[in-house]
Amino acid sequence: MDIKTLFNLSYGLYVIGAKEGERNVGCVVNTVTQATSSPVTLTVCINKENYTNSCIKKTKEFAVSILSEKTNENVFGVFGFSSSRDRDKFSEVPYSLTPSGLPYINEGVTGYIQCKVINFIDNHTHTIFIAEVQEAENLFKEPPMTYAYYHNVIKGKTPKKASSYAAETENANHAGGKYVCGLCGYEYDGSKEMFEQLPGEYKCPICNADKNIFTFK
Amino acid sequence: MDIKTLFNLSYGLYVIGAKEGERNVGCVVNTVTQATSSPVTLTVCINKENYTNSCIKKTKEFAVSILSEKTNENVFGVFGFSSSRDRDKFSEVPYSLTPSGLPYINEGVTGYIQCKVINFIDNHTHTIFIAEVQEAENLFKEPPMTYAYYHNVIKGKTPKKASSYAAETENANHAGGKYVCGLCGYEYDGSKEMFEQLPGEYKCPICNADKNIFTFK
Repeated sequence: MDIKTLFNLSYGLYVIGAKEGERNVGCVVNTVTQATSSPVTLTVCINKENYTNSCIKKTKEFAVSILSEKTNENVFGVFGFSSSRDRDKFSEVPYSLTPSGLPYINEGVTGYIQCKVINFIDNHTHTIFIAEVQEAENLFKEPPMTYAYYHNVIKGKTPKKASSYAAETENANHAGGKYVCGLCGYEYDGSKEMFEQLPGEYKCPICNADKNIFTFK
Repeated sequence: MDIKTLFNLSYGLYVIGAKEGERNVGCVVNTVTQATSSPVTLTVCINKENYTNSCIKKTKEFAVSILSEKTNENVFGVFGFSSSRDRDKFSEVPYSLTPSGLPYINEGVTGYIQCKVINFIDNHTHTIFIAEVQEAENLFKEPPMTYAYYHNVIKGKTPKKASSYAAETENANHAGGKYVCGLCGYEYDGSKEMFEQLPGEYKCPICNADKNIFTFK
């Protein structure tokens, strides 16, 4: 089996927002799919180790922020490479609440969808949630962020807990001779010398890791 | 709820191939999503009225052809707007068989994935199949066909049985004063006079319907 075949499946990128009591929690996913049109339902697949997964199982509700090409890159660092267990992620981005009080990002998105879980299925490392759409609002006319755009233009990496993570090929794509972020795998797009001349406050544009987390590989 | 919000979810386009005894059956979907990476599983959502759905429930296996931007437009007409109940769809396209004997399109695709169903869930009009990937092969280095490309470049329409079908907005997008295919909704991209001067053998480029199926709206 050539796992790279599956790299040609096409996706968008989304932030799932949910609640744990009064706290806002969330994570990035690429697995939101409309499942039926009448009633309007969708599916989303979330890793069981994601804190957001356990919160949705309790509250049975979540919001989808549909990321656009104008999404600020720190969204991927905050929501893709750290846990809501120990970080108030939404406090670091512009956000609003849906009519039912769920958090969604309100800049660099095309809109949000408010969902009520009607079923969920255990599937190995992930849970597949099936949800009915309760509210949906278009906010900005911007091209939606696709997974291809994230990888090819933003040079973003796939978090280890993602449905589509493929460790070997992430490494296989590394051409060598570059500074690489030790947290998210981002490769600095410049020479060894250019990286070393960056100010000490430089941070990974994807996951916000400090400059000293980078290693030359 | 603004249903158009969901138009910004991003998808690819795929032909699902399956077997009914010795016969090949299949349909177009936009709902293939990788669900886990270890083991590699995926989900696909198929309308219960699709003949292919009932065949997969019996055989527990299917193949995914990942369509590329070079997919011949007749693939959408054959696989999207007619039924395998009364048409041998694969006989009208170039195809091969996977190692386990499932049909996949072998031109205008990036590759194929051979899958074994491990679970399926009833969800209103559709069934969500969860399947383990058994084989996968990359065939051509072409950009995958996205749903956005199909709508914006090919001017393709959404079949009524699709997960993402939205009758009102399909109509709402119709600007008026055009010849429209009565089967798939394709709008001829030219004037009334230009359409009427087309030869009698003209067929809808999307669904292959005869010229006389078109009406001026």
